[in-house]
Amino acid sequence: MSDVLSNHTQQDPALRLAQMQNPESEVVHFAKETPLELDSGDSLAPFSIAYQTYGTLNAQKSNAVLVCHALTGDQHVANTHPVTGKAGWWDTMVGPGRPVDTDRYFVICSNVLGGCMGSTGPSSLNPETGRAYGLDFPIITIRDMVRAQARLLDHLEIPDLFCVMGGSMGGMQVLEWAASYRDRVFAAIPIATAARHSSQNIAFHEVGRQAVMADPDWRGGGYLEHDTSPRKGLAVARMAAHITYLSDEALHRKFGRNLQDRERVTFGFDADFQVESYLRHQGYTFVERFDANSYIYMTRSMDYFDLAADHGGKLANAFQGTETRFCVVSFTSDWLFPTEDNREIVQALNAVAANVSFVEIESDKGHDAFLLDEPELFETISGFLSAAARRRGLRRPDEAKEAGM
Amino acid sequence: MSDVLSNHTQQDPALRLAQMQNPESEVVHFAKETPLELDSGDSLAPFSIAYQTYGTLNAQKSNAVLVCHALTGDQHVANTHPVTGKAGWWDTMVGPGRPVDTDRYFVICSNVLGGCMGSTGPSSLNPETGRAYGLDFPIITIRDMVRAQARLLDHLEIPDLFCVMGGSMGGMQVLEWAASYRDRVFAAIPIATAARHSSQNIAFHEVGRQAVMADPDWRGGGYLEHDTSPRKGLAVARMAAHITYLSDEALHRKFGRNLQDRERVTFGFDADFQVESYLRHQGYTFVERFDANSYIYMTRSMDYFDLAADHGGKLANAFQGTETRFCVVSFTSDWLFPTEDNREIVQALNAVAANVSFVEIESDKGHDAFLLDEPELFETISGFLSAAARRRGLRRPDEAKEAGM
Repeated sequence: MSDVLSNHTQQDPALRLAQMQNPESEVVHFAKETPLELDSGDSLAPFSIAYQTYGTLNAQKSNAVLVCHALTGDQHVANTHPVTGKAGWWDTMVGPGRPVDTDRYFVICSNVLGGCMGSTGPSSLNPETGRAYGLDFPIITIRDMVRAQARLLDHLEIPDLFCVMGGSMGGMQVLEWAASYRDRVFAAIPIATAARHSSQNIAFHEVGRQAVMADPDWRGGGYLEHDTSPRKGLAVARMAAHITYLSDEALHRKFGRNLQDRERVTFGFDADFQVESYLRHQGYTFVERFDANSYIYMTRSMDYFDLAADHGGKLANAFQGTETRFCVVSFTSDWLFPTEDNREIVQALNAVAANVSFVEIESDKGHDAFLLDEPELFETISGFLSAAARRRGLRRPDEAKEAGM
Repeated sequence: MSDVLSNHTQQDPALRLAQMQNPESEVVHFAKETPLELDSGDSLAPFSIAYQTYGTLNAQKSNAVLVCHALTGDQHVANTHPVTGKAGWWDTMVGPGRPVDTDRYFVICSNVLGGCMGSTGPSSLNPETGRAYGLDFPIITIRDMVRAQARLLDHLEIPDLFCVMGGSMGGMQVLEWAASYRDRVFAAIPIATAARHSSQNIAFHEVGRQAVMADPDWRGGGYLEHDTSPRKGLAVARMAAHITYLSDEALHRKFGRNLQDRERVTFGFDADFQVESYLRHQGYTFVERFDANSYIYMTRSMDYFDLAADHGGKLANAFQGTETRFCVVSFTSDWLFPTEDNREIVQALNAVAANVSFVEIESDKGHDAFLLDEPELFETISGFLSAAARRRGLRRPDEAKEAGM
């Protein structure tokens, strides 16, 4: 009755597994001879990166925008998702006439290393054993993800990015790009993020991992071999995480104590309250599209992120001498990556006299606001990109058309 | 390796089970002929209430203080806990010379109905089947808990309480006492609580329940019969809940990103960070002393609590005509039961011109502050009780001694 996964028609798990092995995306394979050196000291080879592009790269190769996805996002920014059939996760932001205008910019988004939508991750085949890596997959850091993205750009023969942008874990990648590849980043937009993962956020991630690992179907990480999946554990992990993506106010406004399709409480453990029903739905739809080991690996990547620690303990050092233009965005009701965390980034950038604008957007939608219909966010991004494009000498779509391009 | 329950010497589960069946407390048994009518429409009989007392009831029976415990508390307020061997959960508050001075007051604390320390709960034997109730146990509301406490007072022949006090779920019971038994409550101290459980709090509880229920050892609630226990699920539930008891600031101050007994991260899923190690410890020590079904039942009791809804949709109605003196206490960094929730109680009391004082205590310790060494809390309680005692005509211990009592 109160099983999180009951009363729900499972999608065909083959749909999701197919995207891991043979994604409906472009895929670049890096051969055994060109391994990726990882922060852990391990190296990974061969490896693949799956990616989507939108718009057209101009002749000068000066209009490339790299979008970095968040923990449970993927490369399907602005096209129908091949597993869920839903719209891309940021199709309000990226597309023709959108703030990230694909009539003007060439947008790239790759599934992060460690992910489960076609890039190499813990559920990929380990060439040494012929079985899925499972826990033999090396721990991937945010910097490793960015290194893999840089390899993708090399492959695409794009020397540098007009802009790199993303929210949450995507924002961590943005910061890492600006720190590690400053000459390849003209503009950077870290949104609702932090230069280091907080104690509370590590704690929430640890709960999620323990929920997955407590599920006997996890099988010590080897569930694929046993043709099982820690669905219940991953659903619980997602439910806990999902609460942190919303604000108390948003939950109150959206659900309050409203009952779900009933007049009074049932004096039982059914989902009496709308918020319970919503949360269960979030849990079980997530497991249809995400891999449990990717989840625990990528939460670890975020936990390990500490850009100051990587630069002698001082965040400003990470940006010393930068010529990148930054636009830092936070949301008032985001308690996962509160304004304070974002302001620390701004302060570090100010300390090195970087070109930075900072916008705290009034919203009661919590951390998820960066994915939602937030006009002030769209205006901010649109305005910042247009100004940066002028500096970069990019023509507007109408100018390009007039010039017959 | 990363199993939440590995590397931990289990206590003898018999220790805990013994307290459910045969507690080291006073126990009053209510016979089949005197059932407890429940909000659900069910009735419960027979039933037992286990309780502790401290101090001496005076001849006028005018010095009784009822302490109501929180979700995972129990009746062992100020004595060594029979399972953990640790000090009572509020022994800084209750005892000789403490704010709730047992030289002056007669303190009673009972294990709530639905609990697992000797009062009847889901793991008690169902007389109809001869097996543990499991999910056949009726849902218990906060009002039902209070009804059972009133029956205990009847049994003890204590007509009314000098004071009823408690934090969190204990505070909900305090409010219910003041609403349902106003003539039996001289003073009331609800601490860090709310007159109704919020959407976000219901959501966190739902995650905890789903974590327990996802554990195959839960066995649909029938784990006792199978001689199992959903230890992993309950540990995950506790870990998630524990984060909500602390503040972001407290976690940052206490742990930050400090590593646990190591110089650098291990690039694995061990508890690299102190906060992870702490959280795992909280999870596995909790399962040693608490029953999983009691946990899911009592979270449900809190979810259902909505004192305004029980009084025609207006909280003030619950207190109309009250002569009880109230002292409402909140903590600045408590995000589970924020000051705003406590202020709503105060506003309702003001609306009926009740005698109420309200103190918001500056603390960065989050919800747990009410259990911790908070001098301002102690002073507040001590001062409020002394003033109320004067009104009640209770003598100070020194006066009593002078009078040869």
